[in-house]
Amino acid sequence: MERLRVAVVGGGPAGMAAASRVKRLLGDRAEVVVFEKGRWVSFALCGTPYYIGCTVKTLDDLVYYPLEEFVEKRGIDVRIRTEVTEVEADARRLRFRRPDGGEGVYEYDYLVLATGARPKVPGLWRELLGYENFFTLRSLDDAERIRRYLVRDDVRRVVIVGAGYIGFEVAENVRALGREAVVVELASQVLPVMLDEDMAAPAAEVLEANGVALRLGVGVQRFEAEGGRVRRAVLADGSAVEGDAFIIGVGVAPEVGLAKSAGLRIGETGAVWVDERMRTSRPEVYAAGDVAETVDLVTGRRAWVPLAPAANKMGFVAGTNIAGGDAVFPGVVRTSVTEAFGLVVAATGLRERDAEKAGFKPVAARLEARTKAHYVGGGSKILLKVVADAETGRLLGAQAVGDETAFWRVNVVAALLQSKATVWDLFSLDLGYMPKVAPVWDPLVVAARLLMRKLGTKPRG
Amino acid sequence: MERLRVAVVGGGPAGMAAASRVKRLLGDRAEVVVFEKGRWVSFALCGTPYYIGCTVKTLDDLVYYPLEEFVEKRGIDVRIRTEVTEVEADARRLRFRRPDGGEGVYEYDYLVLATGARPKVPGLWRELLGYENFFTLRSLDDAERIRRYLVRDDVRRVVIVGAGYIGFEVAENVRALGREAVVVELASQVLPVMLDEDMAAPAAEVLEANGVALRLGVGVQRFEAEGGRVRRAVLADGSAVEGDAFIIGVGVAPEVGLAKSAGLRIGETGAVWVDERMRTSRPEVYAAGDVAETVDLVTGRRAWVPLAPAANKMGFVAGTNIAGGDAVFPGVVRTSVTEAFGLVVAATGLRERDAEKAGFKPVAARLEARTKAHYVGGGSKILLKVVADAETGRLLGAQAVGDETAFWRVNVVAALLQSKATVWDLFSLDLGYMPKVAPVWDPLVVAARLLMRKLGTKPRG
Repeated sequence: MERLRVAVVGGGPAGMAAASRVKRLLGDRAEVVVFEKGRWVSFALCGTPYYIGCTVKTLDDLVYYPLEEFVEKRGIDVRIRTEVTEVEADARRLRFRRPDGGEGVYEYDYLVLATGARPKVPGLWRELLGYENFFTLRSLDDAERIRRYLVRDDVRRVVIVGAGYIGFEVAENVRALGREAVVVELASQVLPVMLDEDMAAPAAEVLEANGVALRLGVGVQRFEAEGGRVRRAVLADGSAVEGDAFIIGVGVAPEVGLAKSAGLRIGETGAVWVDERMRTSRPEVYAAGDVAETVDLVTGRRAWVPLAPAANKMGFVAGTNIAGGDAVFPGVVRTSVTEAFGLVVAATGLRERDAEKAGFKPVAARLEARTKAHYVGGGSKILLKVVADAETGRLLGAQAVGDETAFWRVNVVAALLQSKATVWDLFSLDLGYMPKVAPVWDPLVVAARLLMRKLGTKPRG
Repeated sequence: MERLRVAVVGGGPAGMAAASRVKRLLGDRAEVVVFEKGRWVSFALCGTPYYIGCTVKTLDDLVYYPLEEFVEKRGIDVRIRTEVTEVEADARRLRFRRPDGGEGVYEYDYLVLATGARPKVPGLWRELLGYENFFTLRSLDDAERIRRYLVRDDVRRVVIVGAGYIGFEVAENVRALGREAVVVELASQVLPVMLDEDMAAPAAEVLEANGVALRLGVGVQRFEAEGGRVRRAVLADGSAVEGDAFIIGVGVAPEVGLAKSAGLRIGETGAVWVDERMRTSRPEVYAAGDVAETVDLVTGRRAWVPLAPAANKMGFVAGTNIAGGDAVFPGVVRTSVTEAFGLVVAATGLRERDAEKAGFKPVAARLEARTKAHYVGGGSKILLKVVADAETGRLLGAQAVGDETAFWRVNVVAALLQSKATVWDLFSLDLGYMPKVAPVWDPLVVAARLLMRKLGTKPRG
C-alpha cells in the first residue's frame, strides 16, 4: 500500500499537532513532512516576553518537545530552515528552499497550512526593522535579538508601541532587566482589545506603580533615527519619546501569502477560510492555527482569534481528519488572559461595546468583590464585569482583573458562553464554596444578581 | 392595606436571605419575623473549624451581617433565643418559646422553614453528648465549646470520627492548636463522599505528613468513659484509640421535625419536598436551605445536598416568590470543596461509582498534570479525574486534588454539567492561556483527549 503523503507548512504548535496526530493514527502508513523556515519547531511564542526578562533562561526552555522527539519518537520528517516558496495546488505539489539555498519539490496527498501570523508594522515603519534597536516580537529569534540588545550597557530606556498583551507583558520584562519602559498606545486605555474602558484602570495603575510610563491616547507619527539607531518616537501631539530600543506590538495579521498563491478562499476576516473540520476551500488542503479563521460562538460569525490553545486544537482536528478520523473544532469565545506585575487580566466573549456593534442590546454588571470569605484572611479583591443581552438574558462576555481567580472566573463564564447560557444560569451555577477558597456568594453570582435587577428574576424563554 | 406577615423559622443564611429579600421587595408592605433558637443569625457554619484553630479569632467574625443590620437597616423583626415549638399549618399559626420561657403565637400569611440540618449521631452515642469532652460541630456554640475545651492543658490528643470534610478541616485545626489528632473512618479512604477511591491518596498523605494519624476502614464500636469524661473509642477490630476529646463528624440530617408536624410532604431524600420555586406541598409554606431537598441536575433525580451556596440561593428564591416575584432554583450539580494543610480537594457531579449506580455507563480519565506552563516556574501538580457517560459522551462529574486551580477546574466542569455538555464540548472549551497562569493544553482539555480515545473524536447526537 502506498503511504499517504502529508505536507505541513509551519512547525509551530498547530503544524506539529497536526503532524503528530497523523503519525499517531496512521504510523507507517503516512509520510509526514514538516517544513519550517526558522530554527525551531513546537515553540511557545507566548513565553518570549519571559525570555527577554530572563525568567526563562534559554530558548530551548520555550520548546515544548525537542526536535528529536518528533523525528525519532514520532517518525516525522521535520525540515527546519526550509521555506516553502510556492504551493502548486492543482498539482498537489509545493516548492521549497533548502537551508543550503537549493530548491526542492514535494508532492503531497494532503497539505496543512500552519503558517501562523506575522506582526503588523505600518508601511512607513517597515524599513526601520533594519535598525539594530527596532524590533517586533513574533519569533524566538526576535526574542533573542531583543534580549541581546537590551542587556547592552547603553540601553537605558525602552519604548514599547502598543499596550496590548505584548506591550503589557514586555513592559514587565523590560523593568525586570532594570531598564526604563515607556508604553505608547493610540487608544485611550491599556489593553484596548481585551477590556472595556471602565475595566482598564487597574492595569494602567499596576504599570505605573512599577515604573512603566504610559502615553495613552496618542499615536506615533514617525520615528527618527541618527547614527544608525532609532532615537525617538515623535507622537501625534508633537512631543517626542526618546529611547534606546523600540519594540512594536500593535497587532498581528495572518500569514496568508502561500494560501493566496494557492488560490484558497480567504475569509471575511482576512484569514484562511476553513470549515469546522479545518478543511479549506480545497478538500485536500487544511489550515490550522493562526493562519486560519474560525467561528465566534457568541455572535455566530466568522472570527480570527490567533491564540495558542485554539491553534493546538485546530492542528489536532486537522491531523485527525486527514488520517481518516472525524473531529471538529466548532469555534471560540475569545477567551484571553495576560499578566504583569502580579495583576491578572482576563476576558471572554464580547466586551460591552463589541456587543452593541454585534447587534445585541448589552447590559452589564460591574463590581469589585473579595475573592474569599472575609473571615479567614487571604484572598484579595477583583474587579469583575459581566455582559448580557437585555432582550434574552443570554450571557455575552466577562472581564476580570485581579489575582488568578480573575482568570478562573472568566474561564467559568467561557464555559457558560459555549452553551449559550443566560444570566439565570449564572445565578444558579453551582460553584463550590468553602471559606479558604471562595466567598459563599461568589462575585460571579453577585454579578448575576445585579443583572437580574435589570432583567428580572424569572428566566425567559 | 394590610401588611403581609411572613414568618421565617431559622436565622441561618437561607432564612436571612429569604427575610431580606421579602423586605427588599416589599418594604413596609411586609412584616417579617425571624425566629432563631440560638444566639446568632446570618452565621457561617463553614468557618467553625477555623474558629476552633484560632485562625478566626472571635465568633462575631463568623457572622456575615450583625443583628443590627437586619433589624435596623432591613427592618426585619429578628427574635433570637426563640424556638418555634409547633406549626399549626391549617391555622397558619406557629407557637414559639421566648427567651424568658414564655410562650407566644404568631399568625402568618407565608412561612419559610429554614431549620437547617443537625449532626447525625448514632443512637447509642447520643447520651455521650452530655460529657464535656464529646462533641459534634454544627453551630457556633459547638465551636465555642470545642475551642474552650481544646485549649485546656490536659488535652493532648483529639479523636475525630469521620474523614469527611468536617474531619478533614477539623484535623488541620486541631494540629494548629498543637494537639495530636487521630481520624477514624469507617470507609477505606478519606473524603469518601466526595472522592472516588483512586483520587483519595493525596488527601490521606497530606494529613499524615502533618501529623494526623489515620485509622481507615474501621468503625467505632463503642466509646468508653471514666471519671466523667470519654476516654477511648473501641474500634470494630478490637483496638482502642485513647483521647482527651472526641469530635463526631459522620454526616448531617435535615431538621424536619417541624415540617413533619405541619404535615408537609417529605421527599424521598428525607428532606422537605419543594418545587423549584421553593414551595412545599402547602402553597403558603416555603422551605429553603439545608432542610429542603432539590434536584440533582446530572441525574435529574431529587437530591439533598446541604451546602451554603445553594442555601443562600434557595432563601433568595423563596423570598422573591413570597414577595410576589418570580424566581426559580433549578437544582445543583453537587459541587463541593474542602482544604487542609494547603491541599485543595474539589468535586462536582457524580463520582465514577455513583455514576454506575445512577444507571450511566461511566468512563473516566484520570491524570496528573502541571497547572502552569513548564518554562515559567511556579504552578504545581494536580490530580484530576473527569467522568463521562460512555454511550452519550455526556460529562458526569470531575474530581481534582492539588492547589486552588483544582477547585477552579472543578468549577469549570460544574458550569459544563449544568448545560449537559459532552466530552467534545470539554475538548473545544475555550479556556484562557498564558504561561504564567495555565498550560496551553489545560489538564481539563487533556482529560477530554483521553476520554476521546475511548469515545471517539467525533461528537455524537
